[in-house]
Amino acid sequence: MRITALSGGVGGARFLRGLLAELDSRRAQDPGTRDPGTQDPDTQDHRGEAAEHDVVVIGNTADDVTLHGLRVCPDLDSVMYTLGGGADDERGWGRAGETFAVAGELAAHGDPPDWFSLGDKDLATHVLRTRLLAEGVPLSAATARLCERWRPGVRLLPMTDDPVETHVVVDAADAPDRGGSVVSPLAGGLAGPGERALHFQEWWVRHHAVPPARRIAVAGARAARPGPGVLEALRDADVVLLPPSNPVVSLGAVLAVPGVREALRATRAPVVGVSPVVGGAPVRGMADACLRAVGVPTTAAAVAGLYADVLDAWLVDPADAPGRDDRALAGRSADDLRVRAEPLLMTTPADAARIAGAALDLAAELADLDVRPRSSSGSVPIAHAGLAA
Amino acid sequence: MRITALSGGVGGARFLRGLLAELDSRRAQDPGTRDPGTQDPDTQDHRGEAAEHDVVVIGNTADDVTLHGLRVCPDLDSVMYTLGGGADDERGWGRAGETFAVAGELAAHGDPPDWFSLGDKDLATHVLRTRLLAEGVPLSAATARLCERWRPGVRLLPMTDDPVETHVVVDAADAPDRGGSVVSPLAGGLAGPGERALHFQEWWVRHHAVPPARRIAVAGARAARPGPGVLEALRDADVVLLPPSNPVVSLGAVLAVPGVREALRATRAPVVGVSPVVGGAPVRGMADACLRAVGVPTTAAAVAGLYADVLDAWLVDPADAPGRDDRALAGRSADDLRVRAEPLLMTTPADAARIAGAALDLAAELADLDVRPRSSSGSVPIAHAGLAA
Repeated sequence: MRITALSGGVGGARFLRGLLAELDSRRAQDPGTRDPGTQDPDTQDHRGEAAEHDVVVIGNTADDVTLHGLRVCPDLDSVMYTLGGGADDERGWGRAGETFAVAGELAAHGDPPDWFSLGDKDLATHVLRTRLLAEGVPLSAATARLCERWRPGVRLLPMTDDPVETHVVVDAADAPDRGGSVVSPLAGGLAGPGERALHFQEWWVRHHAVPPARRIAVAGARAARPGPGVLEALRDADVVLLPPSNPVVSLGAVLAVPGVREALRATRAPVVGVSPVVGGAPVRGMADACLRAVGVPTTAAAVAGLYADVLDAWLVDPADAPGRDDRALAGRSADDLRVRAEPLLMTTPADAARIAGAALDLAAELADLDVRPRSSSGSVPIAHAGLAA
Repeated sequence: MRITALSGGVGGARFLRGLLAELDSRRAQDPGTRDPGTQDPDTQDHRGEAAEHDVVVIGNTADDVTLHGLRVCPDLDSVMYTLGGGADDERGWGRAGETFAVAGELAAHGDPPDWFSLGDKDLATHVLRTRLLAEGVPLSAATARLCERWRPGVRLLPMTDDPVETHVVVDAADAPDRGGSVVSPLAGGLAGPGERALHFQEWWVRHHAVPPARRIAVAGARAARPGPGVLEALRDADVVLLPPSNPVVSLGAVLAVPGVREALRATRAPVVGVSPVVGGAPVRGMADACLRAVGVPTTAAAVAGLYADVLDAWLVDPADAPGRDDRALAGRSADDLRVRAEPLLMTTPADAARIAGAALDLAAELADLDVRPRSSSGSVPIAHAGLAA
C-alpha cells in the first residue's frame, strides 16, 4: 500500500510515528502481506523496512529559516528526529539528550537572534545541510543525505527545493523592532505602512504568536515548484493522509505550492484528514492564532473547510461530534465527505497508532466505495485563498 | 611603546600572554608611565587596557581551513582564546571546558573529515566567522568582531584578508588517498606526478607530519595583499618581536605575504626574535619536520638564518649557546646581529613573561644603540625562498 502524507512538524511527526507503528502491527498480524524476500526477521523496529510500507511524507519547508548563517528546516527535522528515534519527546522539540554549548557561545558573542535555541546536536544537522546547499545540492537531496543517517522509515520529500518562508504581517505597534530579527530575502514588500512582516519563526518562537496577525504570507510559494517526486507521490498513492498539523502554516503552506493542491484534487486515492482541533482548541501549539489570521474559527468543521476541495474523509474527536455543519462548511454533499469520530488526543504513541489506524480504515472504506475520482472543479476554499502566497 | 609581533598559534600565543603580563608588571613597577586619564585602577588584568600596551599581533592565516563548510582559523583563534582567557592550557589547543556534541553528530552522519576535532565552543567561533565572511565582511573585520568578545588585550590583525592555505607536497605513496581529505580551491597544480598536496592541517593533524614533505607551499600567498594595518604596524612600531612560533609554516607564511618581509627590513624598530628551537629540538609541535622540508637543520642558528635579512637580535637558550656560528648563518656581521642567551623553555606563564622581558630588554639596548635603519639590500634567505608561495 502506497501512503502519501503531508506533514508539518512535531504534530505531524508523531502522527506519522503512530502510522508506522500501526502498519508494523497490521503486517505482524497478517504475515501473508510480508514479502519473505525482503523481510529481515531480526529487525524489530520499523527502520530499514521503509520500502515495505512505502510511505512518502511531503514535508513543509515554509517554516525554514536561516539562523547564524545555517539553514534550519524545523519541520523536516522534526519528522527525521521523531521517526528516526532521536527526538526529545518530553520537551516536544529538538534532539534527545541535547546540549547548548554553541548557542551559549553565540550568545556570549551577542550574535542574534537570541530567541531561538539551537541545540548542539541539532546544529550538526544544520551545518551539514548548509554545506550541501552551499555546494549546490538541492534541499531534497540534502534531506535524503540526512535521512541516510536517520532512516526514518519513510521517504521524506521537501514540498519544494525553492526558498519559501512564511511571514506574519502584524501591526508595527504590536511588535516594535528591538533588534535581533531574522532578515529574510523573501520579506520584501510584505509589510505596508504601519506594519511589520515577521518571519514565522520570529512571530511563533520569539513573540509566542501574541501580536495579532493581519496577514500570513507564504513568501516565495508562488514561484516555488513542487520538489522532486512530490506530485508523483500524490498521484500514485493508494491513500493520502493529512495529519493533524497546523492547517494554516504547515499544511496550508504545502498546499500553497503551485500544483500540490491540484494533484490532491486529481489523485484517485482517497484523501483522509485528521482534525488538529479537539474540543474547539488546537491539539498542539498555537494554531488558533494562525486560524484567526485567516478568519477561520478554531473548530474541526472550519478546518475541514480549508481542505474542502481535496478531502474525502475527516476524522474528528467525539467532542467535535460530526454533524451536518461539517459537511456544509466543507462545501461538499453529505455523500462526498465522510466524517468519523475517534478520540484524537495524541498523548501516547499508542494513541497516535490508533488514530492512524482509524484514518487507514476510513480510507479503506472509501476505496471500497470507489469514491474517487471526484469533481475537481471546486475552487480553492476561501480561507486558504486568504493565505497569500 | 608600540610593539608589533608576528604570531602563529599556541606557541606564539603563550609568548604573547607572557609579553602582556610582563608589560603589566613593568607598568606596575613604574607608575610614572601610567596615564591617569585612561587608567582604570580597578582593572586588575590586562584586558581592556589594550590601548596602553599598544600591542599589535599579525597572525598567521595560512593554517586556515574550511571544515564542514565552516572557516576555521586555528592561529588567530589560539591567540584570541589564550589572551582572552578561554584556552585549554592543559590540552594545548582549543577552548577550556570544551564538549564535542556537534562533532559526534557529524561523525554519525559520516561527514568527513573525521580527523579534526571541532569542539562545540570553538565551533561557535567558526559559525559566526563563516556567516560574516559569507556576508562579505573581510577576515580582518570578522576577527575584530570576535575580539570584541575575547578582548585579547592586543590588536589582532590577520596577515591578509585573502585566502592563503599552506599545503605540504608529499610522495603519493607516503600518504595514500583514503578519503576524508580537505579539498582546497588553492591546491590546484601543487602536486606533480606521483605526488599529493595535502592541506597543512591534514599533514599535521591527520598524518602527524610523518609523510616526509617534499615541498611546503604557501598557496595563495603570492597573490595575497597584507591585511589592513599590517604594514603600518610594522612601520610604526617601536619594537618588532618574532615569537618562538613555527619558523616555516607560521612565521614563514606571514613573511610570504608580499610586502611584509620588505616592511620588516625597512622598519626603524629593532626586530628581536625568540628561537623556537631549544637544545636542537622544537619547543612545541613538530617544527623539525617543517624545517627538514625546507632543508634547514633544527638548530637555533639555522632558524636565525631564515630571518637573516630582518633580524637585529636573537634570543636563544643557553643550550644553544651563542657563538660566531649564529652570526655566520644569519649572514650578518657580528655587530649587526646581537645574540643573547636566556632559558627559553616556556613551561609556565612566568617563563613566558621572563622570556618576553628579555626580548624587550634586548630591543631597548638596540634602540639605545640606534641600530636601525640597517641595510635592506639583503636578499630573501635561501630557506624561505624554498618555501614556495
